[in-house]
Amino acid sequence: MSSHDNPRKPETNVNDQFVSRWSPRSFDANQSVEPSQLQSLFEAAKWAPSCFNEQPWRFFAAAKPSAKFEAFLQALVEKNQGWAKNSGALVFVACTQTFKRNDKPNAWAEFDTGAAWMSLALQAQSMGLHVHAMAGFDADKAKAVLGGDVDQLKLIAAVAVGKKSEPSVGEYASEAPNDRFSLAEFCKIYE
Amino acid sequence: MSSHDNPRKPETNVNDQFVSRWSPRSFDANQSVEPSQLQSLFEAAKWAPSCFNEQPWRFFAAAKPSAKFEAFLQALVEKNQGWAKNSGALVFVACTQTFKRNDKPNAWAEFDTGAAWMSLALQAQSMGLHVHAMAGFDADKAKAVLGGDVDQLKLIAAVAVGKKSEPSVGEYASEAPNDRFSLAEFCKIYE
Repeated sequence: MSSHDNPRKPETNVNDQFVSRWSPRSFDANQSVEPSQLQSLFEAAKWAPSCFNEQPWRFFAAAKPSAKFEAFLQALVEKNQGWAKNSGALVFVACTQTFKRNDKPNAWAEFDTGAAWMSLALQAQSMGLHVHAMAGFDADKAKAVLGGDVDQLKLIAAVAVGKKSEPSVGEYASEAPNDRFSLAEFCKIYE
Repeated sequence: MSSHDNPRKPETNVNDQFVSRWSPRSFDANQSVEPSQLQSLFEAAKWAPSCFNEQPWRFFAAAKPSAKFEAFLQALVEKNQGWAKNSGALVFVACTQTFKRNDKPNAWAEFDTGAAWMSLALQAQSMGLHVHAMAGFDADKAKAVLGGDVDQLKLIAAVAVGKKSEPSVGEYASEAPNDRFSLAEFCKIYE
């Protein structure tokens, strides 16, 4: 088995898109990501459900080559810069923190933004792209790059978007999709 | 156009699964949801990405008819009880709050659980089921029903799972998929 075959084994019937999606580090530095592709990713995210249809998710993207991509890259922790530099685009995922209707804190903003992020990831996969979300970024640096656009927002994650390199190539040649808990460990169906 | 045709118009190319998914209230009280179907929903959720592969999501489900379903139902706010009683199963979505590795707070637990929830919703759709998440539940009542299972967890949402009723039937006959902001309102692609 090559290192990019998928070792995951679902326990029961499930659509393959969930099992085959994973987050590689081995992006192909020669492949670009077009603005129109990024738009399709955000279009998928857009239709996620949210509390009161608040749509708290916000996305900021920069494709390579551009000064903004380099600035986004510099806002990542050094270890992530090492592989994310080979992606075709970087995205910062943020959320609003209060409801438009009453300015009260939105306790579901991050949960709902996670739903939008999952749609983005599955859309990417359907387009032959891979995405890899990172908690490892410097929020102050990211805010400096994004400026006034994120004044009222909470920055949650950075996402690398790109084409995966050939399995045998580079530092991450041995990486493979990671495993999960069994169903019994995270869900309970009462009798 | 019947009330359940989809009025949503995507702005750009996107996989239809995202545009056609929506959250009805009009469930068919005569349709049941099997435990094996719930397992497939959780199997989809299982493969979501998470920070450090922590998999912070937890799900608690009760299908109808059962005393546990009735107890879950009673934990919803009254307005939601009115329609959720016609669903075939109710699920509480929760998350862990600290990392297993070091007991420190996991700032991405809700975001990652939102990703798992989105996978669940899309899997449901692929099976001809609909799901509807609710913020409207009484956390104390839910905790009383779930007991020790949720001691260390944060309860985030309740979800009704079922078959949608015919469009012309019942109190919610006029409901239709809701709209979204345009791309320009929630994402920015830098030049």
